[in-house]
Amino acid sequence: MTGRDHAEKLDRDDPLASFCERFVIADGERIYADGNSLGRLPLHAAVRVDGLMAEWGELLVTGWSRWIELPVKVGDLLAQVVGAHRGEVLACDSTTVNLYKLAHAALDLRPGAIVVDEHEFPTDRYVLEGVATRRGVPLRRLACDPVAGPQPDEVAAACDGAGLVVLSLVNYRSGALADLPAITAAAHEAGALILWDLSHAAGAVEIGLSEHGVDLAIGCTYKYLNAGPGSPAFLYVRADLQDELRSPIQGWFGQRDQFRMGPAYEPAEGVERFHAGTPPIVGLAAVQAAVEVALEAGIAAARAKSRALTELTVRLYDERLEPLGFRLASPRDPDRRGGHVSLAHEDGWQICRALIELADVVPDFRGPDTIRLGFAPLYSRFVDVWDAHDRIAGLVESGRYRDVPADRLRVT
Amino acid sequence: MTGRDHAEKLDRDDPLASFCERFVIADGERIYADGNSLGRLPLHAAVRVDGLMAEWGELLVTGWSRWIELPVKVGDLLAQVVGAHRGEVLACDSTTVNLYKLAHAALDLRPGAIVVDEHEFPTDRYVLEGVATRRGVPLRRLACDPVAGPQPDEVAAACDGAGLVVLSLVNYRSGALADLPAITAAAHEAGALILWDLSHAAGAVEIGLSEHGVDLAIGCTYKYLNAGPGSPAFLYVRADLQDELRSPIQGWFGQRDQFRMGPAYEPAEGVERFHAGTPPIVGLAAVQAAVEVALEAGIAAARAKSRALTELTVRLYDERLEPLGFRLASPRDPDRRGGHVSLAHEDGWQICRALIELADVVPDFRGPDTIRLGFAPLYSRFVDVWDAHDRIAGLVESGRYRDVPADRLRVT
Repeated sequence: MTGRDHAEKLDRDDPLASFCERFVIADGERIYADGNSLGRLPLHAAVRVDGLMAEWGELLVTGWSRWIELPVKVGDLLAQVVGAHRGEVLACDSTTVNLYKLAHAALDLRPGAIVVDEHEFPTDRYVLEGVATRRGVPLRRLACDPVAGPQPDEVAAACDGAGLVVLSLVNYRSGALADLPAITAAAHEAGALILWDLSHAAGAVEIGLSEHGVDLAIGCTYKYLNAGPGSPAFLYVRADLQDELRSPIQGWFGQRDQFRMGPAYEPAEGVERFHAGTPPIVGLAAVQAAVEVALEAGIAAARAKSRALTELTVRLYDERLEPLGFRLASPRDPDRRGGHVSLAHEDGWQICRALIELADVVPDFRGPDTIRLGFAPLYSRFVDVWDAHDRIAGLVESGRYRDVPADRLRVT
Repeated sequence: MTGRDHAEKLDRDDPLASFCERFVIADGERIYADGNSLGRLPLHAAVRVDGLMAEWGELLVTGWSRWIELPVKVGDLLAQVVGAHRGEVLACDSTTVNLYKLAHAALDLRPGAIVVDEHEFPTDRYVLEGVATRRGVPLRRLACDPVAGPQPDEVAAACDGAGLVVLSLVNYRSGALADLPAITAAAHEAGALILWDLSHAAGAVEIGLSEHGVDLAIGCTYKYLNAGPGSPAFLYVRADLQDELRSPIQGWFGQRDQFRMGPAYEPAEGVERFHAGTPPIVGLAAVQAAVEVALEAGIAAARAKSRALTELTVRLYDERLEPLGFRLASPRDPDRRGGHVSLAHEDGWQICRALIELADVVPDFRGPDTIRLGFAPLYSRFVDVWDAHDRIAGLVESGRYRDVPADRLRVT
């Protein structure tokens, strides 16, 4: 059995150990295992938002001369997170709206069917269902293995006549990490554009968008990038595609020479043409500060630690939870796994509630039976992983989780 | 000539005088005349944002159980601002994205041409140009008087075969306040739906959306509602229309029973179906606090003071600026004027720069020649109006405005 001393040694050897000091951690006994849903508050983000509010109060409208650069400036920081070039990433809107904009733009350029994973995150499925219906193109749902996620040959087989393939790099349920280079190549081979949703990947895995010639990408900043609830999202468009694509939402921030306010819409040059309305400045200030912290740690270092955290999770699952009726619902191969690990159990929902209410462990839950454990690399300790498993095992062995009143068993 | 003592007396009699204490005002000699572009920082908003950041740090993902209600809760506050019922307004996205969503939704229900004012705010014109092109419907641009704005008979004449009429209640350039009851009736008479953009009206004029049977509306919260640069916008859909309309952006926050994450998109009941992605919580906290301040003052009281402020502006223009080559580019009738007054001058751009750089007056400028003076009612004093005119007159009489170096004459 793996003892707590093993986790303690991993913490002592952890080059990112000091980064937990960059975050507000006022947990007492609580163990936070949901960094894959909402990351912690970086101290820098709190200070930066405070500063932005003061700047608004003092500079008033003249502050726009500096704020107006934020979407591109923050985009350039995010480009370093996702392995893109300067000028290829814009911080704006929500992931949902960005997917909508880029999906229409892509299909204008490359008409055809849309290929999507049937296990894709709901908003992606819903948005693409709407886009497909409105355009009268087929929506092909890949029926891949829900744990392993889409494989290159499966995508290749579905691409005939496709205009656009949309996949998550890391699946929100299983944590499966897709083979981005091979799948991108397969889509291109078939003549389709590919759009990667990086929401569950950005900040936890290394992503070489430019290296692998990815066409389009979107993602959120409130998971492993720690920019706060509902913080602004981002979009990526490969430089050589930008001139060929147009956003369906022709907002004034995407207009060339915006403040001339000319009579007809003419898209701006570069990635700014994918802007819509006035950018959310307070939110962007938080993204800027949070991403700076992530880049200071380094994405390669974050990925290395995240991988070690999930390795420990799987090892402790093998030793302590598998015997208690849990089933690993994530890939076992760390090269094919992102930053969280999913464990299924027939009493999963009740165990998840009990973990929060009786054991001070905060995971999250995806129906019908899956508990997700997301130990985010910038602030999680290896002993957090060990302690969480110890508490889960204790709760299930004792049967105490059945004490949670049924009326609490609602989805929150 | 109207003396400063007259303005001082108006300040003494102002029932909203104490509301300037609710805002951060650290101006020294500066006079802020651009509340129609970006409102001041309410102290409550600063405190609320601070509190929200702390809540994020402490509650982490469990905070969503309270945050998730914010878009509707804030929408219900905004409903009081615009004269709508509870459940008819949602705080979300940007004005641009909200216009896009509602324009497509309206035209799905009522196919036909789009009618718009050719002097409409750019983002509205651009978005509607894109919507019209994509749907293959005509975009009819009303060539109305740029100062008076669209008249009911002009709208009625353009409505034959129209599906949707989009107009601003207060025009961003001239400040013209449209005749909402008559124009709404004219659109309905012709069988078209009407969508009002309330961006330059909300918080400065009384708006009876429900009373006059308005179908749809959108608006921003960073002007007279003081919620900060790029703060979340809002949309309004009349209750009995909600079931008949669908957003083209089928995001997961607009999904019925969202966390079931079912296979197909099924719009939520009520106004929440017009949601797209994850809502911007920090921004919404600022809107909530800022709108609470506006409601405490009361929209009727704000309108009364705003009207008095623009009356004083026009009177001082008549006395001191008209002789210096200025021209009133706003309606003279206060019943047809919103919260700002526009003054044109052939050297308008240079005068505007000089006001900021030499005279500590902050107005804004709309090309080719128009200075906008927006004294927002919650924090402006009547002596601010008097002093601003005194400084403008002094600058122009002396010719000192010509001292601003030409290289500073770029649009900011």
